[in-house]
Amino acid sequence: MAKSPEEEHPQKAFGWAARDASGHLSPFNFSRRENGLDDVTVKILYCGICHSDLHTLKNEWGFTNYPLVPGHEIVGIVTKTGSNVKKFKEGDKVGVGVIVDSCQTCETCQQDLENYCPQTVFTYNALGRDGTKTYGGYADILVVHQHFVLRFPENLPLDAGAPLLCAGISVYSPMKYYGACEPGKHLGVAGLGGLGHVAVKMGKAFGMKVTVISTTAKKQSEAIDRLGADSFLVSTDREKIKEAMGTMDYIVDTVAAYHPLAPLLGLLKLNGKLITLGLSDKPLELPMFPLALGRKMVGGSNIGGIKETQEMLDFCAKHNIACDIELIKMDYINTAFERLAKSDVRYRFVIDVGNSLSK
Amino acid sequence: MAKSPEEEHPQKAFGWAARDASGHLSPFNFSRRENGLDDVTVKILYCGICHSDLHTLKNEWGFTNYPLVPGHEIVGIVTKTGSNVKKFKEGDKVGVGVIVDSCQTCETCQQDLENYCPQTVFTYNALGRDGTKTYGGYADILVVHQHFVLRFPENLPLDAGAPLLCAGISVYSPMKYYGACEPGKHLGVAGLGGLGHVAVKMGKAFGMKVTVISTTAKKQSEAIDRLGADSFLVSTDREKIKEAMGTMDYIVDTVAAYHPLAPLLGLLKLNGKLITLGLSDKPLELPMFPLALGRKMVGGSNIGGIKETQEMLDFCAKHNIACDIELIKMDYINTAFERLAKSDVRYRFVIDVGNSLSK
Repeated sequence: MAKSPEEEHPQKAFGWAARDASGHLSPFNFSRRENGLDDVTVKILYCGICHSDLHTLKNEWGFTNYPLVPGHEIVGIVTKTGSNVKKFKEGDKVGVGVIVDSCQTCETCQQDLENYCPQTVFTYNALGRDGTKTYGGYADILVVHQHFVLRFPENLPLDAGAPLLCAGISVYSPMKYYGACEPGKHLGVAGLGGLGHVAVKMGKAFGMKVTVISTTAKKQSEAIDRLGADSFLVSTDREKIKEAMGTMDYIVDTVAAYHPLAPLLGLLKLNGKLITLGLSDKPLELPMFPLALGRKMVGGSNIGGIKETQEMLDFCAKHNIACDIELIKMDYINTAFERLAKSDVRYRFVIDVGNSLSK
Repeated sequence: MAKSPEEEHPQKAFGWAARDASGHLSPFNFSRRENGLDDVTVKILYCGICHSDLHTLKNEWGFTNYPLVPGHEIVGIVTKTGSNVKKFKEGDKVGVGVIVDSCQTCETCQQDLENYCPQTVFTYNALGRDGTKTYGGYADILVVHQHFVLRFPENLPLDAGAPLLCAGISVYSPMKYYGACEPGKHLGVAGLGGLGHVAVKMGKAFGMKVTVISTTAKKQSEAIDRLGADSFLVSTDREKIKEAMGTMDYIVDTVAAYHPLAPLLGLLKLNGKLITLGLSDKPLELPMFPLALGRKMVGGSNIGGIKETQEMLDFCAKHNIACDIELIKMDYINTAFERLAKSDVRYRFVIDVGNSLSK
């Protein structure tokens, strides 16, 4: 008979889990594997709440395996290291993101693209290479192979830096890959949420002109005054949108819901690139004429590799980029998810795990 | 009162035109402008029949201005040159493609991308910069600004080379732009028609492995034995398609009709690029997960600039690439269009204009 989550491994662990597609979270006793030769055990201090957590809690993508402990924007302190671990020592501040393992031998892994390895192990709702389930960061401790642990830069705030481990790298990696990091170029950011607000900050740090495109007119002052965007377009303002046609070099489209691509393609210049990061479960409509007549492209991306995640953290530390967050206690979590479902958060909830994990 | 097409300009011209959306073509007297200082007058010998000709004849894109003389895959002999013309002389073999003018001053034109200039003048169904209508190559003569005239390489057949001026450059330009020209890489070609069969030949000339993806199983031997493809996939053969998943670096998608992109995206490797060239008037469905999980992209393209068209012609001459054509007389034209509408041609009709243009 399969062992219970509590007895499966030698290290006792405690977190909050959902038991079914209601997505309601409550205290949960489970366990973590023994700290192996290449492993790092992390005492979790903060964990960001990502929109994927919501999708998975409610089984909206159809592959949730309950009980589920979400959380893949994890910051904490090293409490144990295996004898092969040279990069980290007890007391180090570290981060863990969306992936905790990969084959590390395939061509993809060799190119530092572990995030695209066919054997990638996600931080939660996956099976580890030992065949046991992975549980995420809404918990007290985590055991991770050292390769998947990030050094957390000294001057990056532990709480507001946590969401960089998913939201940050999800934006940074495609911006670099598709070239949306050239000083002086014009970047559009569609959707001003967890990813969008980081894209604005990164765009400015890259020296770009940044325009936020949002359905919500009242976000204008925040976009410009607080986040540093150069301009703001309300996507329903036809006159202003018309004026802005053909002016952008790149658009980072962070809108998660089903939405039309044609207006965004229209905003792009010749050779413009539309980077779609939202994972609508319904296909989007792709019009052929704007793609052809402006030699435009639409490209996707999924988080980033470990080396690039470290580079992103260091970049953010250098440019004083962190997320705008609302810090919550663990017992607020179910309310937080209700609010997240209504996009009622600016711009990321982060759980103060270290100070509020109680049974 | 506006002058009649016959009296508009001083040079008498004769061709075949459609008068309405029936698309039926019949003899048509019109005129061409005086040969200006920078102009070249061409006696037309051959003109390819492009699928766009069919769309425009029947006003399927909704902007046809009748009477319409189609034709933008034109090969002929220079009969007159203006005093500023140094590149061409009487008797030269030349080609004219999809565009006959552009502003030549904007940033786009300065980058040799006249095809994307906002003031591009198309070879037919457009208004020239003098405000008069353009008529295409189903006619005896053509007057064109020298900049838009191509040298036709000595060893390229005049008839089978003609379709390169649209089909050829429409494929060559995006293959170069998106990088689908690397020796050893695996190129998929979806759809084996006018563009597709040229893409196969160019892919092989670039040293790529080429797989044709077609709905028509009986095209297999042609694809492999005649065109030189390395392999062939029937798009309805689920087993074979499954085996081929994740094996292609690039796909040139020449399918003009509405069709699903998901299977093509599935055939691509990590970082794979899908180049869509068909201009379906209905948007295609773009699934988000394959785009994200494989960091794939979908990009468009519209013909190519003049400099690159010359490069393409020279490349084809060097690699003995011409189109597989069915040479027809002008009075067969209406039958040819009926057959083209049923894809009953391998792979391009070319009109023997020089030998069959009669009233």
